[in-house]
Amino acid sequence: MRILLINPNSTAAMTAGIEKAARAAALPTTEVRAEHPEGVPPAVECYADEALCIPPTLALAEARAAAWDAIVLACHSDPGIDAVRERIVNPVIGIGEASYAAAIAAGRLFSLITLTQRFVRRKREQIRRLGLLDRCASIRTLGAGVVEGFEGKERLRDRFLAEAEAAVRQDGADCVVLGCSGMVGIAEDLQAHLGVPVVDPVVAAVKLAEAIGPIRRGPRR
Amino acid sequence: MRILLINPNSTAAMTAGIEKAARAAALPTTEVRAEHPEGVPPAVECYADEALCIPPTLALAEARAAAWDAIVLACHSDPGIDAVRERIVNPVIGIGEASYAAAIAAGRLFSLITLTQRFVRRKREQIRRLGLLDRCASIRTLGAGVVEGFEGKERLRDRFLAEAEAAVRQDGADCVVLGCSGMVGIAEDLQAHLGVPVVDPVVAAVKLAEAIGPIRRGPRR
Amino acid sequence: MRILLINPNSTAAMTAGIEKAARAAALPTTEVRAEHPEGVPPAVECYADEALCIPPTLALAEARAAAWDAIVLACHSDPGIDAVRERIVNPVIGIGEASYAAAIAAGRLFSLITLTQRFVRRKREQIRRLGLLDRCASIRTLGAGVVEGFEGKERLRDRFLAEAEAAVRQDGADCVVLGCSGMVGIAEDLQAHLGVPVVDPVVAAVKLAEAIGPIRRGPRR
Amino acid sequence: MRILLINPNSTAAMTAGIEKAARAAALPTTEVRAEHPEGVPPAVECYADEALCIPPTLALAEARAAAWDAIVLACHSDPGIDAVRERIVNPVIGIGEASYAAAIAAGRLFSLITLTQRFVRRKREQIRRLGLLDRCASIRTLGAGVVEGFEGKERLRDRFLAEAEAAVRQDGADCVVLGCSGMVGIAEDLQAHLGVPVVDPVVAAVKLAEAIGPIRRGPRR
Amino acid sequence: MRILLINPNSTAAMTAGIEKAARAAALPTTEVRAEHPEGVPPAVECYADEALCIPPTLALAEARAAAWDAIVLACHSDPGIDAVRERIVNPVIGIGEASYAAAIAAGRLFSLITLTQRFVRRKREQIRRLGLLDRCASIRTLGAGVVEGFEGKERLRDRFLAEAEAAVRQDGADCVVLGCSGMVGIAEDLQAHLGVPVVDPVVAAVKLAEAIGPIRRGPRR
Amino acid sequence: MRILLINPNSTAAMTAGIEKAARAAALPTTEVRAEHPEGVPPAVECYADEALCIPPTLALAEARAAAWDAIVLACHSDPGIDAVRERIVNPVIGIGEASYAAAIAAGRLFSLITLTQRFVRRKREQIRRLGLLDRCASIRTLGAGVVEGFEGKERLRDRFLAEAEAAVRQDGADCVVLGCSGMVGIAEDLQAHLGVPVVDPVVAAVKLAEAIGPIRRGPRR
Repeated sequence: MRILLINPNSTAAMTAGIEKAARAAALPTTEVRAEHPEGVPPAVECYADEALCIPPTLALAEARAAAWDAIVLACHSDPGIDAVRERIVNPVIGIGEASYAAAIAAGRLFSLITLTQRFVRRKREQIRRLGLLDRCASIRTLGAGVVEGFEGKERLRDRFLAEAEAAVRQDGADCVVLGCSGMVGIAEDLQAHLGVPVVDPVVAAVKLAEAIGPIRRGPRR
Repeated sequence: MRILLINPNSTAAMTAGIEKAARAAALPTTEVRAEHPEGVPPAVECYADEALCIPPTLALAEARAAAWDAIVLACHSDPGIDAVRERIVNPVIGIGEASYAAAIAAGRLFSLITLTQRFVRRKREQIRRLGLLDRCASIRTLGAGVVEGFEGKERLRDRFLAEAEAAVRQDGADCVVLGCSGMVGIAEDLQAHLGVPVVDPVVAAVKLAEAIGPIRRGPRR
Repeated sequence: MRILLINPNSTAAMTAGIEKAARAAALPTTEVRAEHPEGVPPAVECYADEALCIPPTLALAEARAAAWDAIVLACHSDPGIDAVRERIVNPVIGIGEASYAAAIAAGRLFSLITLTQRFVRRKREQIRRLGLLDRCASIRTLGAGVVEGFEGKERLRDRFLAEAEAAVRQDGADCVVLGCSGMVGIAEDLQAHLGVPVVDPVVAAVKLAEAIGPIRRGPRR
Repeated sequence: MRILLINPNSTAAMTAGIEKAARAAALPTTEVRAEHPEGVPPAVECYADEALCIPPTLALAEARAAAWDAIVLACHSDPGIDAVRERIVNPVIGIGEASYAAAIAAGRLFSLITLTQRFVRRKREQIRRLGLLDRCASIRTLGAGVVEGFEGKERLRDRFLAEAEAAVRQDGADCVVLGCSGMVGIAEDLQAHLGVPVVDPVVAAVKLAEAIGPIRRGPRR
Repeated sequence: MRILLINPNSTAAMTAGIEKAARAAALPTTEVRAEHPEGVPPAVECYADEALCIPPTLALAEARAAAWDAIVLACHSDPGIDAVRERIVNPVIGIGEASYAAAIAAGRLFSLITLTQRFVRRKREQIRRLGLLDRCASIRTLGAGVVEGFEGKERLRDRFLAEAEAAVRQDGADCVVLGCSGMVGIAEDLQAHLGVPVVDPVVAAVKLAEAIGPIRRGPRR
Repeated sequence: MRILLINPNSTAAMTAGIEKAARAAALPTTEVRAEHPEGVPPAVECYADEALCIPPTLALAEARAAAWDAIVLACHSDPGIDAVRERIVNPVIGIGEASYAAAIAAGRLFSLITLTQRFVRRKREQIRRLGLLDRCASIRTLGAGVVEGFEGKERLRDRFLAEAEAAVRQDGADCVVLGCSGMVGIAEDLQAHLGVPVVDPVVAAVKLAEAIGPIRRGPRR
């Protein structure tokens, strides 16, 4: 099976990180590649960024559809997922939707941990639109200015563990979703400490793409 | 990683089929085994069967917990899943819940295809309890007496395709869930014909167990 | 009419207390008995206890079905209620479901008062599954270690009144559900002080069983 | 205990029928009376009738509150229930709300059977407002002109049984609510034929009023 | 077009204020009048007031229906709206329903700001009944005794701004509904300071009545 | 007040029609203009069209924000509404959201009438995401190939009336939403025949933009 992950932002290091995480999760017989379109913003931090990244993402998905079995949209906001599904016959998985799907299979009530307060409304809206609000125990943040302020992974990890523990103890969560793209690849370590599932959205998406498997390839019609 | 699938009924051929499907879905580095407890009914066709199979399933899960990373309950009704989660620290995945989770990641509206009319109320109730009723386009059946009446896989496949096509055309489904345990292993073929994802519950569960990965093992406290 | 209450745990004093409360609630022409099956746990405090008590409860219900008009499952978790309904033609009432039903008839928003924090997630899940989450103002607890720590009914009563008053004042509840089985029989006293309905689950179940009345008796088919 | 049922319409025969049904359902120690206010419409068949009957109903409830323990509003639309609760400290039960409450305690999915098509929208709205729409399998009617056209109870009973059987077979209902006030007192006979609970709203309300018991009496403040 | 606003309370100054606000919002070609029925309470502060004002409101609506194109019920509780719709063929708009409708068109999550704590339960219930609870970020109040205690509009305005800012910052609201009838006519000033839409219920109702336009006039049938 | 309607497709006749309908609905003191961005598809018939039209729409909204008080997105899918709201401080109204808002203020249950079967899934999803699915009686269509096949407005009008009448009679709708952009400007005529409100999305949006009024203008920050 061949899975293409499209990172809808233009930060090459992030594309590389996504490919690495996907590679580690996939079957050895699965070919995996991550790519980003030209002309997209360096990060997708708001609805407007999302809007701007969709047309190039859509074009890239159409251009690559004939050569890959599944397309994974590698941004937690799942930008343009309905449009991509409409244009190509391949299965299309968004890492945001995949992360919530994994969460409801892993427990009864999930908490989402995201970077800063200004993401909360959008994330709440995303969960509400998927119809999963009553499976969500809480949305917690790592504190304003997190990205800039952190000197290293160590401090980020500590903050994450503190919030995740509060989610489990106080909010009743029995599963935590990593809504923070900078943390791809550390779910395994985190959940060993927490004792409850910590969902890595890229891993969830690759596994679900493999679960569906190849269907058809190429543009629709 | 080591995944144990517990088939809560005592039909050895079914246990074998589950193990085979799981084996085909898992990473080569994942060790997979399917097992059924002693003293359970030959099939789980109703709430009462479910009730009877839970205590032996729970005992088996506890007995095996220290040696396996994840437990998969390999019955689409997910019998006793909350009880098993309560008793062991390992991740516990039910194939029913996993199939619906995969479905909502694969599309907007799923249809469930189950064997006979008498399963419909229970299936509707299961979906309602998970909070996914408004993501469900329809529950369709293969007709009364299906199991007994079929001379072979061929006819079952035709009936399934007819119902699945109606689900897509008439009910608006863009994803189909195989709620019929006798059909494990044929999703790939079916979806190639339909052109939309067909979720195999065992495959979905194994992939989601791998997505979560090992956490801790053994009885709780 | 003849109502059998099955206490799915083996604590004889509790069975006796249930019978006494039921007797006080029933019509004089209603015959009431409480019984517990052999081989069940002494208390149903978790999903696993629930699972273990169901098969003997089911067997007892089937064995007694021909002689009684209605079966009441006298545990607030309603263990095995769907299975029992499936096996016998008699009306089957769970005291948990009956308590929430009475609460939504008594007001607009109920609060549930349960013993300790570790019950909250299960109780929230029970209410969510019944589709009544938006009629629930809050779930409050009497504090950890309550059962062990109380020297007498007096202190329990004070704690209950304090929490119930907070539910009414702060959470907007206009009805309180007694989710604490040790408190059967004191609802009347409590609600006289609170001034809002306090639902006793055993009383609610007996009244609803009488409201339905006899239908048919015995195993299904 | 003393329960006053207020029939908000001025049809004396109906008031008498309600009292008779309530009397048959109540404990021998419960005093029961049905009364209707002066100056209300002869029937409550629409929202406007409802509006017109509320002020006299409210006045009667206030005038009687000090002498009775509970007030039952004996109209399936529960006209003015929030207003009555606001004015008096006694428990107030509506027969509509009580009937749905009994239905969700008696099964998983109820069907409501009402007289004619023009009631369907209002009944659907009532169920939606109570938050119980996903517990409702269907609303069925006995056909236009039913009241006028029936020569006797016999034909009404046949029509009811036909619709109730369709609700169970086709709609998946496992409980039926009698939404037809002219049929008070025949639920017992009907459910013996159907084999599933048939809820009589007056009986449900009396039982739930007794389940709550006396709290306080009289006007609020 | 001719729009009649019925103020269901008898406070003439309020009727005048409503007419003024409506006049300012309407097209110059729209004729606007506000009127109140005889024999209604001076204010509609509870369900009982509501009940008492409905029959005269209904009678006035029927009496005026032939001469006006639309009827606006100018009380935030929308008293008797279903009854009025049933009796006349004209479009009928309630200012409460109109204010929530405007709010969901203006943003994703609204907060309602009402006078005192004792209105909160009723307002929550109104929003829940309309099916909009998951679009509501919070219900905030201006503090007990507000009406009596304020020396002038100035202090009320400050309190409102403080609560509205908290709704936006802490509760995630992106739109605020003025649930406080004494504040009609100041939404424009408030929203200029807040920077998010502040919905004036009378303005919303007049605009929505104009959006629908004339249909038919007079009593039904 | 100055309202700019952005038609996100490049069909000039449609832009002109939108401006005309908006002009007819607005206050004489309201300045109204409709405009479409360069480089957008000729029609927005699918998610992919939607995606392609959003970046130019967003750019146009930002470029015009300082000169207009409100921006109306004049496409029933509300493409990019969250992105536009994020980038500018002006109120932003989508005609789709406005049409559903007007519908819930005009009645209890609305039906949407759209052109062809292939729009139904998207429209259902739009309504579901807004949280209004339980206020929607049905989605009806005018039949495949409608646009091409119609020789004139006359036949379209007949088809619409037939579907709308069925929505009211059979589905229980008491309000109809025009989800068919080619029909802008005929709602008034249609509702005179139907006798229930027919919502024109452009009119609803202009009225709601006026209801909110000016707040602030220009790009955010």
